[in-house]
Amino acid sequence: MTAFHLSTAARSLLKTYRHRAVIKTVQGLRAWEFRNMYPCTSIAEHNSMEEILKKTVVPLPTYEMREKSPPPPESNSLEFMHFYKSLEKEQRLEFLEKLSHDFGVDHRWASDLAAKMLDTQGRDVATILQVEDRLRYSLTPRYRQLLTHISKVQGGVKFLVDLRADLIEFASSKISDSPHMRDLNSTLKSLLSEWFSVGLLQLERITWRSPCEILQKISQYEAVHPVRNWTDLKRRVGPYRRCYAFTHASMPGEPLVVLHVALTEDIANNIQGIVREFATVDVDEDVNKINAAIFYSISSTQAGLQGVELGNYLIKRVVRELQSEFPHMAQFSSLSPIPGFSLWLQGTLGQHKKEGRATELLSEQEWREVEDVTGAAPGAPALEALRRLIGTSEWIRSDRLVHALEPALMRLCAWYLYGEKRRGYALNPVANFHLQNGATMWRLNWQADTSPRGIANSCGIMVNYRYFLQETSTNSTAYMQNKVIKASEQVVGLVSQFQKNSKL
Amino acid sequence: MTAFHLSTAARSLLKTYRHRAVIKTVQGLRAWEFRNMYPCTSIAEHNSMEEILKKTVVPLPTYEMREKSPPPPESNSLEFMHFYKSLEKEQRLEFLEKLSHDFGVDHRWASDLAAKMLDTQGRDVATILQVEDRLRYSLTPRYRQLLTHISKVQGGVKFLVDLRADLIEFASSKISDSPHMRDLNSTLKSLLSEWFSVGLLQLERITWRSPCEILQKISQYEAVHPVRNWTDLKRRVGPYRRCYAFTHASMPGEPLVVLHVALTEDIANNIQGIVREFATVDVDEDVNKINAAIFYSISSTQAGLQGVELGNYLIKRVVRELQSEFPHMAQFSSLSPIPGFSLWLQGTLGQHKKEGRATELLSEQEWREVEDVTGAAPGAPALEALRRLIGTSEWIRSDRLVHALEPALMRLCAWYLYGEKRRGYALNPVANFHLQNGATMWRLNWQADTSPRGIANSCGIMVNYRYFLQETSTNSTAYMQNKVIKASEQVVGLVSQFQKNSKL
Amino acid sequence: MTAFHLSTAARSLLKTYRHRAVIKTVQGLRAWEFRNMYPCTSIAEHNSMEEILKKTVVPLPTYEMREKSPPPPESNSLEFMHFYKSLEKEQRLEFLEKLSHDFGVDHRWASDLAAKMLDTQGRDVATILQVEDRLRYSLTPRYRQLLTHISKVQGGVKFLVDLRADLIEFASSKISDSPHMRDLNSTLKSLLSEWFSVGLLQLERITWRSPCEILQKISQYEAVHPVRNWTDLKRRVGPYRRCYAFTHASMPGEPLVVLHVALTEDIANNIQGIVREFATVDVDEDVNKINAAIFYSISSTQAGLQGVELGNYLIKRVVRELQSEFPHMAQFSSLSPIPGFSLWLQGTLGQHKKEGRATELLSEQEWREVEDVTGAAPGAPALEALRRLIGTSEWIRSDRLVHALEPALMRLCAWYLYGEKRRGYALNPVANFHLQNGATMWRLNWQADTSPRGIANSCGIMVNYRYFLQETSTNSTAYMQNKVIKASEQVVGLVSQFQKNSKL
Amino acid sequence: MTAFHLSTAARSLLKTYRHRAVIKTVQGLRAWEFRNMYPCTSIAEHNSMEEILKKTVVPLPTYEMREKSPPPPESNSLEFMHFYKSLEKEQRLEFLEKLSHDFGVDHRWASDLAAKMLDTQGRDVATILQVEDRLRYSLTPRYRQLLTHISKVQGGVKFLVDLRADLIEFASSKISDSPHMRDLNSTLKSLLSEWFSVGLLQLERITWRSPCEILQKISQYEAVHPVRNWTDLKRRVGPYRRCYAFTHASMPGEPLVVLHVALTEDIANNIQGIVREFATVDVDEDVNKINAAIFYSISSTQAGLQGVELGNYLIKRVVRELQSEFPHMAQFSSLSPIPGFSLWLQGTLGQHKKEGRATELLSEQEWREVEDVTGAAPGAPALEALRRLIGTSEWIRSDRLVHALEPALMRLCAWYLYGEKRRGYALNPVANFHLQNGATMWRLNWQADTSPRGIANSCGIMVNYRYFLQETSTNSTAYMQNKVIKASEQVVGLVSQFQKNSKL
Repeated sequence: MTAFHLSTAARSLLKTYRHRAVIKTVQGLRAWEFRNMYPCTSIAEHNSMEEILKKTVVPLPTYEMREKSPPPPESNSLEFMHFYKSLEKEQRLEFLEKLSHDFGVDHRWASDLAAKMLDTQGRDVATILQVEDRLRYSLTPRYRQLLTHISKVQGGVKFLVDLRADLIEFASSKISDSPHMRDLNSTLKSLLSEWFSVGLLQLERITWRSPCEILQKISQYEAVHPVRNWTDLKRRVGPYRRCYAFTHASMPGEPLVVLHVALTEDIANNIQGIVREFATVDVDEDVNKINAAIFYSISSTQAGLQGVELGNYLIKRVVRELQSEFPHMAQFSSLSPIPGFSLWLQGTLGQHKKEGRATELLSEQEWREVEDVTGAAPGAPALEALRRLIGTSEWIRSDRLVHALEPALMRLCAWYLYGEKRRGYALNPVANFHLQNGATMWRLNWQADTSPRGIANSCGIMVNYRYFLQETSTNSTAYMQNKVIKASEQVVGLVSQFQKNSKL
Repeated sequence: MTAFHLSTAARSLLKTYRHRAVIKTVQGLRAWEFRNMYPCTSIAEHNSMEEILKKTVVPLPTYEMREKSPPPPESNSLEFMHFYKSLEKEQRLEFLEKLSHDFGVDHRWASDLAAKMLDTQGRDVATILQVEDRLRYSLTPRYRQLLTHISKVQGGVKFLVDLRADLIEFASSKISDSPHMRDLNSTLKSLLSEWFSVGLLQLERITWRSPCEILQKISQYEAVHPVRNWTDLKRRVGPYRRCYAFTHASMPGEPLVVLHVALTEDIANNIQGIVREFATVDVDEDVNKINAAIFYSISSTQAGLQGVELGNYLIKRVVRELQSEFPHMAQFSSLSPIPGFSLWLQGTLGQHKKEGRATELLSEQEWREVEDVTGAAPGAPALEALRRLIGTSEWIRSDRLVHALEPALMRLCAWYLYGEKRRGYALNPVANFHLQNGATMWRLNWQADTSPRGIANSCGIMVNYRYFLQETSTNSTAYMQNKVIKASEQVVGLVSQFQKNSKL
Repeated sequence: MTAFHLSTAARSLLKTYRHRAVIKTVQGLRAWEFRNMYPCTSIAEHNSMEEILKKTVVPLPTYEMREKSPPPPESNSLEFMHFYKSLEKEQRLEFLEKLSHDFGVDHRWASDLAAKMLDTQGRDVATILQVEDRLRYSLTPRYRQLLTHISKVQGGVKFLVDLRADLIEFASSKISDSPHMRDLNSTLKSLLSEWFSVGLLQLERITWRSPCEILQKISQYEAVHPVRNWTDLKRRVGPYRRCYAFTHASMPGEPLVVLHVALTEDIANNIQGIVREFATVDVDEDVNKINAAIFYSISSTQAGLQGVELGNYLIKRVVRELQSEFPHMAQFSSLSPIPGFSLWLQGTLGQHKKEGRATELLSEQEWREVEDVTGAAPGAPALEALRRLIGTSEWIRSDRLVHALEPALMRLCAWYLYGEKRRGYALNPVANFHLQNGATMWRLNWQADTSPRGIANSCGIMVNYRYFLQETSTNSTAYMQNKVIKASEQVVGLVSQFQKNSKL
Repeated sequence: MTAFHLSTAARSLLKTYRHRAVIKTVQGLRAWEFRNMYPCTSIAEHNSMEEILKKTVVPLPTYEMREKSPPPPESNSLEFMHFYKSLEKEQRLEFLEKLSHDFGVDHRWASDLAAKMLDTQGRDVATILQVEDRLRYSLTPRYRQLLTHISKVQGGVKFLVDLRADLIEFASSKISDSPHMRDLNSTLKSLLSEWFSVGLLQLERITWRSPCEILQKISQYEAVHPVRNWTDLKRRVGPYRRCYAFTHASMPGEPLVVLHVALTEDIANNIQGIVREFATVDVDEDVNKINAAIFYSISSTQAGLQGVELGNYLIKRVVRELQSEFPHMAQFSSLSPIPGFSLWLQGTLGQHKKEGRATELLSEQEWREVEDVTGAAPGAPALEALRRLIGTSEWIRSDRLVHALEPALMRLCAWYLYGEKRRGYALNPVANFHLQNGATMWRLNWQADTSPRGIANSCGIMVNYRYFLQETSTNSTAYMQNKVIKASEQVVGLVSQFQKNSKL
């Protein structure tokens, strides 16, 4: 649902697009001119990495000359981009390591200025401020300038987004985790944050009349509830639906983050009603039936923009957009999946068995139902049977179990979302995303996603995170700084039932 | 012609627009909601500057918490903007001084980290890099964060551009030139440079079918050769003309820098042929008559973007655009005014008189013509007569003088452009702009601007700066770093004639 | 206000545009190709009218071959257009007379078929229908085909609109009023009616962001309340205003009929409040202050579309548009001038004097006021004085007269609008236009247009024609078929006061 | 390939769209208002056809009142449309029969005027012209007015296009072929011809950035070489391809006729190279490799526009468009299927067998090959074997046969295209379409469409119809009036070989 989940899907997509990016980039200075300058085949062969880096990463001007140094010619940036794109994955790693290691901060220079700064203590304010400015300047990595220049050529920003996707991939696969690489990543992230600042983003409403180029991407990027065909896609941008995306001037035709909204009478407790129902394609919207906006899918599309907050801003812009379209609308809520709940549950059951606390998580009555249906003996065997049922999704076929397990699975799930933490924050990434945004954990919904995938991932449970715009700022701060989760009575009630049953 | 010249024209315009900006900005969070929160009349009265600053400029998070601090609510930024806009000029100065002084870098923290950095010398690279990053972070002025947040609300970027225009005005009028204010200005400029990076700008061709909103602004911003009426305006975007502008996603409908181009058979030596000729409105362009593109006007419109290079990039983008429209076009050149030449000439004449070198600048023959026409005695009287003729533009009425003075004025003007310097760079600001861009000083044109203004400013002389794209990067570096001016044989010839005559 | 008034203004404009039309038209088949075929200078000289007509107006195919005749080559149409455009006015008249006379219906053929039709009486239905179809076909003027072909080439429809403008001009100036020319005019009108059918028109809302090309035309076409400058124009498309136009696919960028609307709290009784008030440029619309839509100007721009109903449809489309933007809006009304009232009044006064009924039109009290103010003797002298006052607009300077004459002028004006007829329909053309549309004569407004022009034309009185959409169809039929005028109580009351006073 | 072929495909599509049309149409006057007036369920029940017709088809005004009759209220048209749409197919037939029979021409009136016209013979021209005009007016069917009014309401034009599709279906299925229905059809066709006149059509180039709505339709309408998926569709609007459509202002988003073009080095002789080749998606076009434009698919999408010439105009507009994009392009040609050839061939073989001329169509050598491969005895058995091979497409699996049959099938196919006629015109509908347009039958291509469908329909042969713009007008006239086919030497050569072999 968040960028986090999609990264694999997005990444495979990016591979497809990457090749195209090269072509487009080079078009900048008119593709054929450039090709004449640097015949494709020879680049990687005739230039060593060192040569390219030396040539394209020009030295930082002295502090005095910093405003008097015209930008290097565009061909510098183009050559760097072209070279990088021609490299295989492992070569890219090597190349970026060289770049980050050899063209970073000049430590000696920085140290000298740090010493100088300590010397100026007690001097006049003008002197102090100037030394600070020099020190700040000296702490600029040399490659930062190159990145800035690249951002100015056509296709440059997209190139840097993709380059950062590589960096993140190297880091997450632990292939490389050098401090220099981390510095490069963080420098690049901070630049991207400036360029993808919300003020520079365009909110676009996507409809069936939007360019096919965009709709196709929307369709491909949708990983949560995959789009099946044209009709399905048409419905998702049709009546009682809204689809919004942020786009960016430097990457035209490329939606960066996409939010799908359903307009409903009440806060939806079921995803099939939203993504499967076909009655809505050719009707007129009846504004009297629209009281709630349900965010049922949000997808980030650019792996390289990880950590650059976009989804949060998109949700809030959309809320405002919808408020102006439907002045009386008061309910804004997600209908979110709970990836990882089933896995966590099986892990927890296993743990309890190992620790000899096999009977704890369910009530006696609940265990009895499991035993009856499965024919398993009480205690560990029943627990194991339950674990298998969850793992195979078979419990869903027994109406009796569906009925009997509802209270147990609901309170376990509430605990998973509310109580399970990682470094103090919600373990579940979707929950963490919405809580960071300042949403309230509003309602767990039983049998909300009865697709095989929904049963397998979260026993069919889904959760609403509700957005009260006037509260999000407070909630967000409370969560991020004090790790406090805002939750509704239903959620809190389920959690305390869990605690009672679990003797926590 | 450059941002430099237009600042007064632009500034008066900005005043008109500024009021509107407030309204638009507030619209961000739906104007009336905001007005309900902060009834207009009371803001300035009920809140002291200190209170507003304390409330809206939140402290920099600790280094550890820097990624865990959600942005402050939008209303913070809106309140700051609203308050600032409600202030009178002098109050703004006071307010910005407080902001820059009280909410800048935390010097103690920075010093502590500088000391720590010196301690880590010789430690492992990870430690060193981390301390550097902490130091860099500690050198961030506290107000920088606020500026970033403001950029994210609707109308925020435009607000900051206008705020910087205020800063520049305060600085240039010497009202305030504190080091803290300079730091604020430089922080803001560096942020604006990121946001107005060329990658984020859109090149727009302006035609008669462009929105009226934009054409009206184009018309108003044109200060060099003022637009007289609809027909005049229509012609400047009609056949044998091109008009391009950079716009920015965050300031829709607002051209940032505007370039007017005439398409001609040869490099134009005369501006009247371009801005006065009315034969061109309703004809078809004959592509066979188009061999040259003449940049006859370039205007920056935002005082607050001073120092953020846009014009340079615009010219080069336009050259490429035209090359793709007219593949065989090979001549790209400005036809530029020479503001300041007449004044300089009068000053120089005065200087020579004072120094008793009255006869130096002109040849004997030339002086004789002056004496004949004016009836003045040789030496100082003739010089004084000439000076008066220049000052009153009266020489232009005498065909004989026009003829006789041509060689003298041409070589003096060549010297003025080529030889007169300020800190080593061309004194004339238009020359400096094009030389920084890497253009070649190509040709001085006699009687190129015979409008009263043209005669008064530069004795009717204009100059072509020619752009050879493959050379601009080299020329620019040579000029900016070594102060070398690339000039044509004509110009160099005139300069050496001047030197001979002036016994330099 | 209607097409009727504007014809002179529009006509002078058309002259300007006509020349351009030639260029554009020829562009169809790539201007230079065509020019190569027919070098401009020689066309009119080397081809007589007869030759051109013979060449371009191909014979009507036989009934049997009517579907098997491919269209003549486009160059035929282009040659006709080019030739016609190259003619002087008088030559055009001659040319059109030839065309209409020599290339109309084949009377003999038609007669033969009429005879045949009479023979088929009583035959089977298939035979009857076929003879009718043949007869209908034979009644097609030969030039009709040419007109249809012309409509298909680029610029062709505009050419025909302009050609019809010529026809109308010839007819109205009585230069030519042959039955053949009338037939040509009526054939062309019926074709234009098909092409400018409402289903083929686009409603465009004009704003400050519309293309300058269109706004300039809007500005030029506005004859009722002339646009003074950019600011004035900007206001007319700004807040509390709406400007709509119909455009047509075949004449892009050309508004055909333009409607200006003011959004007000009540039905406006005063035009100055609408066209002079400058407070509105930069504010936000407050939807709570918008209860009424006032149509304060409607202009047809194409003389050649006279009689093709557009204005009526535009008003009704706009009402619906506004209803959907402001669902609670219930008042739709014009604020219309009363051209001709002063002239009629002076004529009527003259008539009364001649007929010795000098004291009839005003009450004794009213006459006394006139006598007092002017010092004229009762009876004819007072009447003459009043007539002079009206003719010179001088009465407006006397507050006493303004006060005293109000009831008299109001009831006279009501009578003029309601009671004065031409062939049974309202004499006043604006009234006739709105009554045909089915509007109600709603309210006369005293001192509604105090501009010199308003006083001179209609003693400053203006009138609202109100549109109740559910009634327009009935009203329109009642008016057009039975000459019944729907009027409000105020109007009817004034009329009966007039009748009482006038002893009618 | 032409409208003719697609009718079944198009028709099934139309069914899908028809229901939507109702909704949209009613939207005209704001759907819910209308529904309140006429609750859906009751319409068909509570109003008999007679009542509806009487109410909505108002009488033709008298000749004198024809300009004084305001249009009936829009609700009239909407009621008619709504009622018609609610009818089942058979009811529609009944309804249209009533409409055409009871509301056609007033025969008595027409007869009276015909008699009057005969009386005016020899009278003055004004009288004659007036009687003609009256007669013409009297020959207007009463329903014509209704059709015109319907065209003015939103969705009205599309309604009429669909109504005519019904009429055509009734006629072609011989369910109804009354003279009145033919009159209605012909009246409607002539109105549609006016509204869909080329001057009112927009040429749109379809690209991957066109609205999805349009691209989806393009994809669905493509019946000749069906679009398989997004990638396939993307390719057809990508590099080395062009896709153009005519759209109409009254049916936005609805392509009326679509032309697919491939840009190639030479005139293509093979369709697989065009629709299967995937190498082209992400490359830049190399303009040096583009010498020919191949029209490889043209589809009409509106069954109701049968007989309204659009495809012809589209091809010619596109040729001009391409000429201006590629000034040096000189080859414009279709690559067309030959539907019906295989069927014809089998029929011909059968005929020959029956007539005992079994050995005629092939040469002795050719028959021998057939006998060898099939093992069939000479004469009738061999012919029967060949016929079976063609019928089952099995011959394509034998390289020997493929080789041996090439000359025979090529000359037979040439004859089929060139020599087989229906009422004097080419029997093959695709040939007839291009010959009417004035194209030249240029080249038969062996193994040009090796898809199962291509083999089954035309033994894999395809044909190029080449367009020489300067000749099309002459060719078209020669073909349509004198039935002369313009063909290349290759085609003529094949035809004469056929004649020799066939002893014709």
